[in-house]
Amino acid sequence: MAFKNRDLLSIRDFSKAEILHIMDVASEMDRSLKAKDRKYSRALEGSVLASLFFEPSTRTRLSFEAAMNYLGGRVIGFSEPSHTSIVKGESFEDTIRVVDGYCDIFVMRHPQNFSAMRAAELAVKPVVNGGDGTNEHPTQTLFDLYTIMKNFRSMENLKVGFLGDLKYGRTVHSLSFALALFHPVFYFISPKSLALPAQYMDGLVKAGVECHEEEDLMKVGDRLDILYVTRIQKERFINPKDYQAVKGVYQIDRSFLSHAKDSLRIMHPLPRVDEINPQLDRAPQSIYFQQAHNALPVRMAVLALILGAVE
Amino acid sequence: MAFKNRDLLSIRDFSKAEILHIMDVASEMDRSLKAKDRKYSRALEGSVLASLFFEPSTRTRLSFEAAMNYLGGRVIGFSEPSHTSIVKGESFEDTIRVVDGYCDIFVMRHPQNFSAMRAAELAVKPVVNGGDGTNEHPTQTLFDLYTIMKNFRSMENLKVGFLGDLKYGRTVHSLSFALALFHPVFYFISPKSLALPAQYMDGLVKAGVECHEEEDLMKVGDRLDILYVTRIQKERFINPKDYQAVKGVYQIDRSFLSHAKDSLRIMHPLPRVDEINPQLDRAPQSIYFQQAHNALPVRMAVLALILGAVE
Amino acid sequence: MAFKNRDLLSIRDFSKAEILHIMDVASEMDRSLKAKDRKYSRALEGSVLASLFFEPSTRTRLSFEAAMNYLGGRVIGFSEPSHTSIVKGESFEDTIRVVDGYCDIFVMRHPQNFSAMRAAELAVKPVVNGGDGTNEHPTQTLFDLYTIMKNFRSMENLKVGFLGDLKYGRTVHSLSFALALFHPVFYFISPKSLALPAQYMDGLVKAGVECHEEEDLMKVGDRLDILYVTRIQKERFINPKDYQAVKGVYQIDRSFLSHAKDSLRIMHPLPRVDEINPQLDRAPQSIYFQQAHNALPVRMAVLALILGAVE
Repeated sequence: MAFKNRDLLSIRDFSKAEILHIMDVASEMDRSLKAKDRKYSRALEGSVLASLFFEPSTRTRLSFEAAMNYLGGRVIGFSEPSHTSIVKGESFEDTIRVVDGYCDIFVMRHPQNFSAMRAAELAVKPVVNGGDGTNEHPTQTLFDLYTIMKNFRSMENLKVGFLGDLKYGRTVHSLSFALALFHPVFYFISPKSLALPAQYMDGLVKAGVECHEEEDLMKVGDRLDILYVTRIQKERFINPKDYQAVKGVYQIDRSFLSHAKDSLRIMHPLPRVDEINPQLDRAPQSIYFQQAHNALPVRMAVLALILGAVE
Repeated sequence: MAFKNRDLLSIRDFSKAEILHIMDVASEMDRSLKAKDRKYSRALEGSVLASLFFEPSTRTRLSFEAAMNYLGGRVIGFSEPSHTSIVKGESFEDTIRVVDGYCDIFVMRHPQNFSAMRAAELAVKPVVNGGDGTNEHPTQTLFDLYTIMKNFRSMENLKVGFLGDLKYGRTVHSLSFALALFHPVFYFISPKSLALPAQYMDGLVKAGVECHEEEDLMKVGDRLDILYVTRIQKERFINPKDYQAVKGVYQIDRSFLSHAKDSLRIMHPLPRVDEINPQLDRAPQSIYFQQAHNALPVRMAVLALILGAVE
Repeated sequence: MAFKNRDLLSIRDFSKAEILHIMDVASEMDRSLKAKDRKYSRALEGSVLASLFFEPSTRTRLSFEAAMNYLGGRVIGFSEPSHTSIVKGESFEDTIRVVDGYCDIFVMRHPQNFSAMRAAELAVKPVVNGGDGTNEHPTQTLFDLYTIMKNFRSMENLKVGFLGDLKYGRTVHSLSFALALFHPVFYFISPKSLALPAQYMDGLVKAGVECHEEEDLMKVGDRLDILYVTRIQKERFINPKDYQAVKGVYQIDRSFLSHAKDSLRIMHPLPRVDEINPQLDRAPQSIYFQQAHNALPVRMAVLALILGAVE
């Protein structure tokens, strides 16, 4: 298992053993953060993260920057490409090649699919994909897994429902792929127009996963260990009518809980709009803010592993 | 006196003894900065400040970020909400709850009154109000007080004139409240349409403060120890005609000094537009840049106290 | 040779001995970065750089911020003036005077010529000019020189061609001035409308430099040790027709190399648009990305010298 100097572009690059190792390191980071023993507070002293956000972000950018800082590293970068020489006509490629000389590692968000892979081809320094269009967001999947592991002690044999936009939602594609390594049963709950694309479904079935498709959450809600809710993203629809037809079709509120097991846990990659009523925020079933907070130890683990501060 | 983990939302939360203690700690920070003995340069090592600016700022954001850095802490955040998931429909509340997992303390500026209080209800980590609409900006008041203390050795028994927009100016409301603890005489000098609102005047009178209202600066200028000038803020007026009527009504220049005591000191929370002629910038009476610089040691004191690095 | 607390406004402020000393310190920084011995990783601990960018930038801002961080210092600032109190009418002068209290050193980019000199008059802390309009960008010249020194072992007796916009390009004005100290021969290759202004040509001739002017690159290409290519900057032309007439007039591609010496080196201050075909990027002649990367050790040297961490 060699993480040092490795690009982190897709969750598909990791073996099950590698994923479990990242979980272990993340647990160690979590303990260190909570104990305030500051065991890792100088682990990345002298290293610089280039944080390049070509699209708006709250969670990804701030948690990566916090992770680097809690490890004693430093951050340079931008949260808005209009403040850079890109406005003077500089290419994405030239931007990457130049910044490659000013940092030890990149994290990057970009609207285009496979842009992170393109950056990794050009840069000498390792590149962490912080979301490339509708393609991948692998560290999101890693802290989704970490959240599941912390709440269920194991990721094995869980019944997981994915709800909402299963067509465009990159988090669903990546998490279902990764969880498939742990003998799950999947329920894909969506309007027909937002169903999981065949390529992903085929992959899961070939991997031997039991998969169900359903339009009505109520028909399967009582079987689930986890309900993974997603936002229906207006910006993905070419035709506004198509968005109007599915918008708000699933809205989870307190009444849903009576249909579910007490041990159900509700996750969401956030941001949410109206898919989960805020009245659920303090229910023990709701772990989406805990999930967002887990970004910090998991991204600390990723940075420390790639920069060689831990093995 | 317990400052650790306390929110700093309003100047009204502090007793006189607490204010004097913050002044002492700020003096200590000031000495440390000037001596370059770096006594506190690692005081907040391992801590992260989330600096969330939903509105433009120069002084508040840069001095808080400098303060955290001079104490060895780190900073994450944004200076413009359009670079965050708020553009995807995320609520203010969700933003605060998420970032709560990535930091040890917040400083926040937001256009809505009481938004800092709302954040403090949601966040586990302490929240410092860096200005919430027309409501409060308590650390501004603290370094206004510090500036007065450094220039007059004591805050007691001063004759203080407040000039300009006394209706909308949150700095005047907060500073007059805090100074009322130190036996002042107040002169409120403004056009009638921008007079101090009755609620504030009533509070001061009840607290036993001698208060005068005046439209003509010349009538009282010779009695003052301090003239606290404010900008008439165009953005507060609903009707542009009302702004035109009062705009530029007070402009202090060198000629004013002959009407005042030599020991007069002129303050301004900045930014200024045309209220104070730049010809006064080098006069010994002008202490508004010194006042802006005092933001640094006072904000260092606030961060160090709340994060428990000093008592 | 006293660098401590000195402003860095123009390349014209340095003697030849001073330039060579900066080259030495930059080499030392380069070695330290590559050896990862971290010799200088706490050299500027406790110091804060105010990075004030009133115009977009990638290279200058990110490399200065990386330089400060690799030296253990901290950074505050902005990459976009609309996030500051300038939108409330605050003057450039007041902004500088205020931030002067929150930092140990400034780096500044601003669209107006001589704005860095204005800032240096107002600020107690030293100011590094990161580009002021069409006037100067002295640290660009310093790492241009460093790149030449690293590739040719010496800066003496080189045949240097400057190509493109020699009228508005501040990098050409500053680099030709500095290289004139090292007995070069210069070829100024441009359309007549973008020729080197007479004031610069006169200065070089007076300094005893052999200068040639040419419109056709092919006529002199085979004599050059260095070809310094520049972007023709659309934003400098008042009349769009004038830009259309010269746009794209020089585009270097692989075919050019057969006309040049094998030892030719191609430089460009970047960003480039279409002046250099990306097919040249991996040719040994192309050193423009190396040049961009040299910004880091040179800017580390500048910051360390001015803040007194090295002599």
